[in-house]
Amino acid sequence: MLISSETKFRGRIVTGNVEVVELPDGQRVTLDIIHHPGGAAVVAVDTSRRVCLLRQYRHAVGGWVWELPAGKLEPGEPPLSTAQREIVEEAGVSATHWESLGSVISSPGVFTETVHLFLATGLEPGTQQTEAGELLEVHWVALDEACRRALAGEISDGKTCVALLRAASRPGM
Amino acid sequence: MLISSETKFRGRIVTGNVEVVELPDGQRVTLDIIHHPGGAAVVAVDTSRRVCLLRQYRHAVGGWVWELPAGKLEPGEPPLSTAQREIVEEAGVSATHWESLGSVISSPGVFTETVHLFLATGLEPGTQQTEAGELLEVHWVALDEACRRALAGEISDGKTCVALLRAASRPGM
Repeated sequence: MLISSETKFRGRIVTGNVEVVELPDGQRVTLDIIHHPGGAAVVAVDTSRRVCLLRQYRHAVGGWVWELPAGKLEPGEPPLSTAQREIVEEAGVSATHWESLGSVISSPGVFTETVHLFLATGLEPGTQQTEAGELLEVHWVALDEACRRALAGEISDGKTCVALLRAASRPGM
Repeated sequence: MLISSETKFRGRIVTGNVEVVELPDGQRVTLDIIHHPGGAAVVAVDTSRRVCLLRQYRHAVGGWVWELPAGKLEPGEPPLSTAQREIVEEAGVSATHWESLGSVISSPGVFTETVHLFLATGLEPGTQQTEAGELLEVHWVALDEACRRALAGEISDGKTCVALLRAASRPGM
């Protein structure tokens, strides 16, 4: 139960609060909570069973990161719509078939972000349109090889590892 | 390359900055960056091939979360030391054998957190000692069942899913 909340930082994407909370056992604690609107990420698999992986420059972690096409939810936007928008913009494809792969929470101690994961198949060419400030390369990698990299630690982005491994575990995939 | 940084929020664990950055292609962008000290998480497996999973109350995501024993790095602390401290405090066991399972990054668009993952075996009883403000239950679950839950989306914490699946993919595990 939230007792009080004070916003200390209102950024472009995230908001930082100091929140006083009563836990279910009655303890009162003061927490830093970073609010994030949530996001969606896509395992887009083509008819050759290759998956789209982006190599994207990420200042927050100091370099290039292997990631799925993904983006944050706009206000009121259903996660599937975010996913459908992002694979066109980032991967340059659209898809006719969509399945949920559940969600992941990024860092539940301090961060509210949930990322909704999707498997997209039936791919058709679209027009890539990266946003200002995005720096990325599009790669298509065999799904089994991508999963090997996730298990070996060569891919380190959490949502990407989880979504690839969930996708590959689907019957028929 | 970092051009300028202004701290807007200095919390107990995280710091929120607005940073102006020059990307490798020469673009200048302004980013919200939430700095986190990083953490460590442990897949502790007993001789019956059961893994320790915590059911922990997490206000940031509004409820109870299945997670591995984990904690944040203290200043200057090697990740293995964090891992060794946290399995005693949270799971009430120590371990004689440790292996790295690589790391995961939690949300590379805005958040600097890296979580270092470890596999711990050769478990011995210790004395659980949860911190004030922690509310958690300790469970021991068959590793295969825990992996099934990670793939089915019944476990949603990113570091936990990745670490469980990497541990289970180890030869001999």
